[in-house]
Amino acid sequence: MITHEQCLYWDKEDELKHFKDEFALPKDIVYLDGNSLGARPKNSLNYAQHIITQEWGEDLINSWNKADWWGLPVRLGDKVGQLIGAKQGETVISDSTTLNLFKVLSAAVKIQANKYPERKIIVAEKDAFPTDIYIIEGFIDLINQGYQVELIDGVSDLDRVLESEVAVVVLSHVNYRTGYFYDMAEINTKIHAKNALIIWDLCHSVGAVPMDLNAANSDFAIGCTYKYLNGGPGSPALLWVNPKHRDEFWQPLSGWWGHRKPFDMAQHYEPAKGIRRYLCGTQPIISMSLIECGVDIFLKASMQKIREKSLKLTDLFIDLVNQECSEFGFELITPTDHHYRGSHVSYQHPHGYEIIQALIARGVIGDYREPEVLRFGITPLYLGYEDIWNAVQHLKAIMQHNEWKNESYLVRGAVT
Amino acid sequence: MITHEQCLYWDKEDELKHFKDEFALPKDIVYLDGNSLGARPKNSLNYAQHIITQEWGEDLINSWNKADWWGLPVRLGDKVGQLIGAKQGETVISDSTTLNLFKVLSAAVKIQANKYPERKIIVAEKDAFPTDIYIIEGFIDLINQGYQVELIDGVSDLDRVLESEVAVVVLSHVNYRTGYFYDMAEINTKIHAKNALIIWDLCHSVGAVPMDLNAANSDFAIGCTYKYLNGGPGSPALLWVNPKHRDEFWQPLSGWWGHRKPFDMAQHYEPAKGIRRYLCGTQPIISMSLIECGVDIFLKASMQKIREKSLKLTDLFIDLVNQECSEFGFELITPTDHHYRGSHVSYQHPHGYEIIQALIARGVIGDYREPEVLRFGITPLYLGYEDIWNAVQHLKAIMQHNEWKNESYLVRGAVT
Repeated sequence: MITHEQCLYWDKEDELKHFKDEFALPKDIVYLDGNSLGARPKNSLNYAQHIITQEWGEDLINSWNKADWWGLPVRLGDKVGQLIGAKQGETVISDSTTLNLFKVLSAAVKIQANKYPERKIIVAEKDAFPTDIYIIEGFIDLINQGYQVELIDGVSDLDRVLESEVAVVVLSHVNYRTGYFYDMAEINTKIHAKNALIIWDLCHSVGAVPMDLNAANSDFAIGCTYKYLNGGPGSPALLWVNPKHRDEFWQPLSGWWGHRKPFDMAQHYEPAKGIRRYLCGTQPIISMSLIECGVDIFLKASMQKIREKSLKLTDLFIDLVNQECSEFGFELITPTDHHYRGSHVSYQHPHGYEIIQALIARGVIGDYREPEVLRFGITPLYLGYEDIWNAVQHLKAIMQHNEWKNESYLVRGAVT
Repeated sequence: MITHEQCLYWDKEDELKHFKDEFALPKDIVYLDGNSLGARPKNSLNYAQHIITQEWGEDLINSWNKADWWGLPVRLGDKVGQLIGAKQGETVISDSTTLNLFKVLSAAVKIQANKYPERKIIVAEKDAFPTDIYIIEGFIDLINQGYQVELIDGVSDLDRVLESEVAVVVLSHVNYRTGYFYDMAEINTKIHAKNALIIWDLCHSVGAVPMDLNAANSDFAIGCTYKYLNGGPGSPALLWVNPKHRDEFWQPLSGWWGHRKPFDMAQHYEPAKGIRRYLCGTQPIISMSLIECGVDIFLKASMQKIREKSLKLTDLFIDLVNQECSEFGFELITPTDHHYRGSHVSYQHPHGYEIIQALIARGVIGDYREPEVLRFGITPLYLGYEDIWNAVQHLKAIMQHNEWKNESYLVRGAVT
């Protein structure tokens, strides 16, 4: 039997508890949606004021040099790289995850076409965040060279599909709905054994779980900075390329930021040496700069300690729902095995949408994903054990009093 | 003979002079680089504070609905649309100019391939901003269907190339170096007579010259918001599609923001009806939102009045350089005919780079572009007649005293 007092004690003993002071969170809410939009680092306000008044307003175009706007994608990429097992010069921040997938997919397909021209299958998951599938479809339609996408039903379906002519596999490191956490090294070994290449979508794993892209021998990776990394709404995305592939090919979104000599105004594209060839056009400097506020907090913490606390908090959430809400029909769809669990917990429930609305009305911010999934993001830097206790108590009250049966909760707006 | 007093008189009579108060410019400088990075609207600071503290910090994911982050690309697109002769629902703000060119180029090529499969030539200008050429090259390499790029030497070379199998022509409405301003309607007529399609790059014309994309019967347009429109460094770009083409095809950067039902998490891409199909992934909300501050100032002014003042100021610049600097070897490369002049004035000079550095040291901020081009952007909303007088006086003093002969001015940094 877990008690409120026990949760208070765990908070008191929590080594990471002081990191909550680095974030500006609204009062009286429990924010369980940091896996969709990370909370705001307090520093972000001062830093934005500096960028806007000094870098833009006062220094104007001189900031391309003085504030090194030009170097931001690589400089911030190297910082984020420390959280994903990348070495310097392997990562850039640029554009969106969707666009970055188009870039690395183009590169991966080109590399494979040179070696294994008969391989025409690109594998993705049925349960991937759909933009990954959409961009693969767009790419295949565009190049019109006989490629096809094959959708698999999770990892258990991977062995089957690898018996066919697979060129590239695109997988989410942590599934955005279920929280299933793939064993990167094990999957890579399997995929490489069949001479396919792997692209990892890190949207729901960067800043949530420790990883080492190099040690696991991954090929390509992309991911968001505005979820666990707290970079701000829609902040530009990360892109990582294994150095062994980096100079093999460039990518077709070949804009001037990726040119070898961007200021020569040359009439033909020549890709930059190194990771800069994965850049395209001019970047949104304010949204990009603010990524640093979130990432710097992570660099002061340790991904190992964040992971330990994440597992304790997700365990607590699962145990408390078992203890307090067992009669209300919540079906856990997140793995109980730590080895396969990311940093969010999801349940299916036929009234999931309305229950999430009722929770939000009580100040517990989780989110809803089709079909029928209640999703609770666990962000150890700004959540404590009592927060989880309170969230589950609200959930219990809502179910006991049928608070979710409210007509206004059936009106659906945009969710992201 | 133009005098300082005459310039002061013109400033006094200037109907647009009060708009300067809307901008936060550094003291004691003359900013002639608003065609590279527009000045900062004063409002942008308060608005950024609101977005960061309230929309991001307090309202968190609720802002996707409450602040309509989701609708920003179309809402801001419609505002910018008023400056380019677009009707509601024809324009979006999204990604970068380079990426938007890839999208509309893909659509234009697809539309043409269905009607005129033998047409395999994509025309661009030798003197285009190079990213336009680079993205065409990237596109051609990727699809590998026998397309080729043909570079023309300005408008006089267009008739020649239109005798061959041209599918699509990409032109800069105002050339980034020379300031040459194409007659959109005349060129469109010529291109359409040969059954080719036109893509206009408006980077150096939107907010600088009046235009009417619909009246001129253009096909596609793209352009920057961070130059004349003062949207902030690297703010996302505009994309316009003629309604007659809008539903013919979508584009291969098919991300979830362009899906017909983005929140259904469907397993196949289905393009949205209307202009939203030109969206791709999640947008940088802070950088995008700030575009509104700049555009709202334009919507209070009139593009016709801005154009009239722009021509007076560029005339004044040219006349004063003739009057004060005739012996120093500046060769005007901007058209003297108003019909063909955008809103910047450019000169070639063998010591252009060092002269620009000397001007910057005196607080006159112009910029340099290879080869040997001194470029002076004229932004009527925050520049007056005395500013032009002062700029030319500084230029004269630098040439008279050989101030540009300074070793430190030979060290070249990044310029944009």
